[in-house]
Amino acid sequence: MIVGIIGGSQIEKKEIYDMAYATGALVARNQWVLICGGLGGVMEAAAKGAFDQKGVTIGILPQNNKSYANPYITIPVATGIGLARNFIIVHTADILIAIDGQYGTLNEIAAAMTMKKYVLSLRSWDLEKLDKFDKTFFIPVQSPEEAVHFIKNSSIH
Amino acid sequence: MIVGIIGGSQIEKKEIYDMAYATGALVARNQWVLICGGLGGVMEAAAKGAFDQKGVTIGILPQNNKSYANPYITIPVATGIGLARNFIIVHTADILIAIDGQYGTLNEIAAAMTMKKYVLSLRSWDLEKLDKFDKTFFIPVQSPEEAVHFIKNSSIH
Amino acid sequence: MIVGIIGGSQIEKKEIYDMAYATGALVARNQWVLICGGLGGVMEAAAKGAFDQKGVTIGILPQNNKSYANPYITIPVATGIGLARNFIIVHTADILIAIDGQYGTLNEIAAAMTMKKYVLSLRSWDLEKLDKFDKTFFIPVQSPEEAVHFIKNSSIH
Amino acid sequence: MIVGIIGGSQIEKKEIYDMAYATGALVARNQWVLICGGLGGVMEAAAKGAFDQKGVTIGILPQNNKSYANPYITIPVATGIGLARNFIIVHTADILIAIDGQYGTLNEIAAAMTMKKYVLSLRSWDLEKLDKFDKTFFIPVQSPEEAVHFIKNSSIH
Repeated sequence: MIVGIIGGSQIEKKEIYDMAYATGALVARNQWVLICGGLGGVMEAAAKGAFDQKGVTIGILPQNNKSYANPYITIPVATGIGLARNFIIVHTADILIAIDGQYGTLNEIAAAMTMKKYVLSLRSWDLEKLDKFDKTFFIPVQSPEEAVHFIKNSSIH
Repeated sequence: MIVGIIGGSQIEKKEIYDMAYATGALVARNQWVLICGGLGGVMEAAAKGAFDQKGVTIGILPQNNKSYANPYITIPVATGIGLARNFIIVHTADILIAIDGQYGTLNEIAAAMTMKKYVLSLRSWDLEKLDKFDKTFFIPVQSPEEAVHFIKNSSIH
Repeated sequence: MIVGIIGGSQIEKKEIYDMAYATGALVARNQWVLICGGLGGVMEAAAKGAFDQKGVTIGILPQNNKSYANPYITIPVATGIGLARNFIIVHTADILIAIDGQYGTLNEIAAAMTMKKYVLSLRSWDLEKLDKFDKTFFIPVQSPEEAVHFIKNSSIH
Repeated sequence: MIVGIIGGSQIEKKEIYDMAYATGALVARNQWVLICGGLGGVMEAAAKGAFDQKGVTIGILPQNNKSYANPYITIPVATGIGLARNFIIVHTADILIAIDGQYGTLNEIAAAMTMKKYVLSLRSWDLEKLDKFDKTFFIPVQSPEEAVHFIKNSSIH
């Protein structure tokens, strides 16, 4: 079971950092592998949360050199394909949790929808406002605990 | 000047087909090169519009074989990288016109926003409803003519 | 008919430059489209040869910005996927001509062999020395004219 | 420390299977992470060797679905970018061991040479025959033990 955590490479509010850290910690405590983009912000906070619980953290980097990975990535993958690496995260994850984030995160959410993979949204894009957005696979949640509860009760688990 | 046309690989309504065809034709008549994903639906209708005006049409295919291109693509590019080819369309286009479309189109619009490239939206996603969506680079237009008018008057032209 | 020209991004000897230029010119004079990596050295010399004959020249760039293309590329494609763009050149070309070159060129020749595409070798790697190299698809030639003659008489033409 | 093992997706001789298995086992026993293409043949034999020693095995798959990974891959990465995934293996590995193999393996060896990464060759391509091949980074070895000995004594360790 591989859980993708997607979100911005910069964090402005402490509560977002705490939420990302707590989500990563819960993923690791459930023995799930965490996959993310390997860089800063939400990716780093979530990876640190998992790392501190001795979890496995995969970082799919845009760069061609694994030295760009944040210090909490245990499995760095240097793709060298730039932003196109977003698709690798989505293809590899069984389910995704979006936390905050900007257009890169929206790009990944849309990619997940093309593959009919669930995205649990924690203070991320409010896509349920869009007329033709698929409410089946995009699930707003209020806390890391609620996200993990959803995963545990889903058919993919 | 390269104009990207993005949209679904299937079209349900004749008016969408006509709009895509007319947009492609206008792009070619202005001597602009058209770039798209090279497959069916909006991509094919727009390419046919440009082709019928003797325009140049680039098709960036997900497959590793150029035989998948629709018949109106004059320059097929067989990438073999699957959906990740979306980024190549956005990187290469100077400006994009989104027509109708589903999640693949949303994926490309978000990619364009990360690069601060204009997207002119013709009956595509109603993203202006989203609180944090950037109204600067996402421009709803009502017709192919209005899209072309915008391009002609923009600084990128 | 799309002909790939592969070779180093730097040229040390004038005769290599002249050979690449002449090859590009012959490709264009035969109304074939030229595809290459879009950068300097052999890629630029061949593209200039074709450009001076009013040919179409596609440049598949590693960068995410088409401003990196040499001035003789008429269709720049900004992939953003780094060296992995080598595969796009090989997938898209119907046949390849290797001129001089180092490891990047060897990488592309090997890619072509996996797809059973012909590579005509002009002062490039002496791979016929290798015991298990496939002599069927790797054809040493002595001049641009001989390369073009081979293409005209091949079944792919 | 991540060791890449590259080689064919099919194995004809039992001694090649045994060599790949033994190499994977030694990599894991040294606590190194193994990275490979995740499919059959040499990739599967090496991954099984490491897996049986409770090692970590990363499989960088060409497909967009991790179900294609062989059963001994503990970290499957579904890239969806086809053969272009070869570059991800080479970018991510600190050093590579080539075992047997055909053109895909040659493609990866050439990629490694562009990055000046060592390739230890075990019954793989006899590239030292080529006039301009760099003997500095391409090291023929006779056994898995000799490959591991080289790594332990190299500056990258």
